[in-house]
Amino acid sequence: MRTLVPFAAVDPKTRLGSVLTADERAAFARVMLRSVCATLQQAGYEPTVCSTAALDATTLPADTAVVVDDRPLTTAVNDELTTDTPTLIMMADLPLATPESIRRLTAATDAVGDAVDIAIAPGLGGGTNALVVREPAFRVDYHGASYLDHREIAADLDATVRTVDSRQLATDIDEPSDLVEVLIHGDGPVREWLLDAGFELDRSDGRVGIRRR
Amino acid sequence: MRTLVPFAAVDPKTRLGSVLTADERAAFARVMLRSVCATLQQAGYEPTVCSTAALDATTLPADTAVVVDDRPLTTAVNDELTTDTPTLIMMADLPLATPESIRRLTAATDAVGDAVDIAIAPGLGGGTNALVVREPAFRVDYHGASYLDHREIAADLDATVRTVDSRQLATDIDEPSDLVEVLIHGDGPVREWLLDAGFELDRSDGRVGIRRR
Repeated sequence: MRTLVPFAAVDPKTRLGSVLTADERAAFARVMLRSVCATLQQAGYEPTVCSTAALDATTLPADTAVVVDDRPLTTAVNDELTTDTPTLIMMADLPLATPESIRRLTAATDAVGDAVDIAIAPGLGGGTNALVVREPAFRVDYHGASYLDHREIAADLDATVRTVDSRQLATDIDEPSDLVEVLIHGDGPVREWLLDAGFELDRSDGRVGIRRR
Repeated sequence: MRTLVPFAAVDPKTRLGSVLTADERAAFARVMLRSVCATLQQAGYEPTVCSTAALDATTLPADTAVVVDDRPLTTAVNDELTTDTPTLIMMADLPLATPESIRRLTAATDAVGDAVDIAIAPGLGGGTNALVVREPAFRVDYHGASYLDHREIAADLDATVRTVDSRQLATDIDEPSDLVEVLIHGDGPVREWLLDAGFELDRSDGRVGIRRR
């Protein structure tokens, strides 16, 4: 299955600006991107990163292709959906993703009996974190509540949709509170990066938070 | 499998106080409780509600047992874990739970080869939303980052733990922003209750929020 990982290379993760400097945000976004690509490879896929700017060769795992496309996310992805090749589109900020959760997503289009045209792993808050498209006429719209939009777009095409129940794929890292999930559940280089940057869980209160040394 | 649903009957869901009155919070918590019990029954389980106060008979689906125990959550649950009967403990604020997600949790203790002693469906933020206990010496501690605590307690007992990857079980409804998930993904009486109370998705901004008419 063709596998795309869109990546915003310039000034990424602005909503982490209260806890990370601009340089740190750029570095952290790249560590997450590398993690997603490596996990996809472990799951048996060959990701192509669609980056809005050129990337250092050291940013990505070996054998990861990069295409540079500085157009908006929705435009760039739709330009890739004009063939009938089944395509997996996975966001670059999903460090909790595992090979198993990715395989559950891609297996969702292989339903017993009827084939499923679209499989969606929604993000918290109505986004679309990962998506499998087997319907050539389908187009994405990543603005706003894209999960609902994608269901509507599929319904207009009489395309069948399956929603995948994965916390790991639902947890995109956008805001400081999301870092808690990485510190609790992460086990790879993204968690290591946060620890090296001085982040730790704050368990002093009833709710778990983060603090930085 | 013995199935327990702890329920805080008095002044529940205080963190929803900015959008719901005290009476509404009491009603909404009970609609969620009823939904969880009905979903457990659909999954083939017979839930017993451990409520901190007596409940109206109309609150629960038919054939749901209730025991009243006004002690703190951790104490009340641990008192039920003194036998070697496998036990499922599911929180009452999980309206997105489905029979399938519950079965994935309970099946997690039936691993191929080695049996698994403890299966956990973590909540966002480090809580423990649903738990299967097959190790008689295991005790819960629901305060704070209970997911991490429960892993440590299991490790001290040399008990094996499996963590279940479910967004539906991870989404406990505590804060106004959590209501977004119910409006987006819910399909039952809990979503209906919110719609009847005037809540709707606010898709006017880039992020999806809620507003009340």
